[in-house]
Amino acid sequence: MKKGKLVYEGKAKKVFEVENHPQLYWLEFKDSLTAFNALKKGSFENKGALNHKITSIIFKYLNSMGINSHWVRNISLTEMIVQKLEMIPLEVVVRNVLAGSTAKKFQIEEGQPLETPLVELYYKEDKLGDPFLNDEQALMMKAAHNQNELDQLKETALKINQHLIHFFDEMGIQLIDFKIEFGRLNNQIILADEITPDSCRLWDKKTNEKLDKDRFRRDLGNVKESYEKVGQLMVEKWGGKL
Amino acid sequence: MKKGKLVYEGKAKKVFEVENHPQLYWLEFKDSLTAFNALKKGSFENKGALNHKITSIIFKYLNSMGINSHWVRNISLTEMIVQKLEMIPLEVVVRNVLAGSTAKKFQIEEGQPLETPLVELYYKEDKLGDPFLNDEQALMMKAAHNQNELDQLKETALKINQHLIHFFDEMGIQLIDFKIEFGRLNNQIILADEITPDSCRLWDKKTNEKLDKDRFRRDLGNVKESYEKVGQLMVEKWGGKL
Repeated sequence: MKKGKLVYEGKAKKVFEVENHPQLYWLEFKDSLTAFNALKKGSFENKGALNHKITSIIFKYLNSMGINSHWVRNISLTEMIVQKLEMIPLEVVVRNVLAGSTAKKFQIEEGQPLETPLVELYYKEDKLGDPFLNDEQALMMKAAHNQNELDQLKETALKINQHLIHFFDEMGIQLIDFKIEFGRLNNQIILADEITPDSCRLWDKKTNEKLDKDRFRRDLGNVKESYEKVGQLMVEKWGGKL
Repeated sequence: MKKGKLVYEGKAKKVFEVENHPQLYWLEFKDSLTAFNALKKGSFENKGALNHKITSIIFKYLNSMGINSHWVRNISLTEMIVQKLEMIPLEVVVRNVLAGSTAKKFQIEEGQPLETPLVELYYKEDKLGDPFLNDEQALMMKAAHNQNELDQLKETALKINQHLIHFFDEMGIQLIDFKIEFGRLNNQIILADEITPDSCRLWDKKTNEKLDKDRFRRDLGNVKESYEKVGQLMVEKWGGKL
């Protein structure tokens, strides 16, 4: 396969066409790290490779559990081939423990476990700051075709949550929350984008140590070491099985 | 009936008990006017009486259309007896035309008509600034008993919207949006609080002139005159019929 022209450069990935394969994309994971809608910028060496590895393992695991994702195969340590989807401009967030913006909004102390997982939608539009919205607004913005599609996104996100809770628990990590994105292919909802410490909150089960992008957002130090730890635990626990 | 002790003083109303009637409240409409969670304060003479009259006429109209409200009867020009409800701490907003915070959030020009009415929930808690939330968060905060109750609130709000569109249209006014609150009584959802130019956006059908609290929020002048105009049109059109 041959890399085609650059289609889009995001904050953490580049998207290329694949020559003679109009149904595929060539993703390249970058070393950059951004937060607060890219107001805060950083990077560290090997970050792209780490997130590439982490995403690949998670997508393989989820595929083995019957969750379709766009991942097709890896090309190099930072590149992968994925299916081209019609992207749905929503970030679907699932929370098991309250943290971040929602804890702040309700002035609830971070770390409060939730009775049932909480699902939230955010409208993916940088110039608006990816605002939180409800189902009715998502339909108004034509982000989803109809309520049935929104329900499907949420149900799939909750299923993924159940799989990921177990997946991380086996690594000694508590899955606090995560953000995922979906696309459409042949009338099917397909998991897209990535699942990495950029898009999850991951706390060490024993120490509650944060192993995710909050280390960067909040200047907690050891950003690289934390991503590396997640990658290493993942390879140790799941690398050989997938 | 005798006014009992003050239970609560809100931004625009006082709530008293009614002696020997534990199932009732005595509401007194004040002349004060606030915006932006009471950061901006004002008042004008006769405002309480105007909003009292407007709310009474609307609640009578809605009752005649089969919508239950807490209104029982008027006691004076600024006071009314209402049923005591178990209040649901949600503001239910219905929008027919985009304006205010939602227009701003999506950077859509104010005045854009919506294909279908948009329903939004806000969590009624002054110290949090009455944040916008989705159904899942409303349930997390235990603002409603369950999704079925939320669905009932929204369906009732949409029914009320249909009635109010007609009600105001007959007065030469376009109903842009409004906020209502509900309570529970004997397992029923009952419309509570008030419906006034404080809680609606009302535009003159011909000139698009604003006849509501936006005149105060945005310093457009003629606040009193606009509330008076709404009251006068309402009495002319509906006063004799209810």
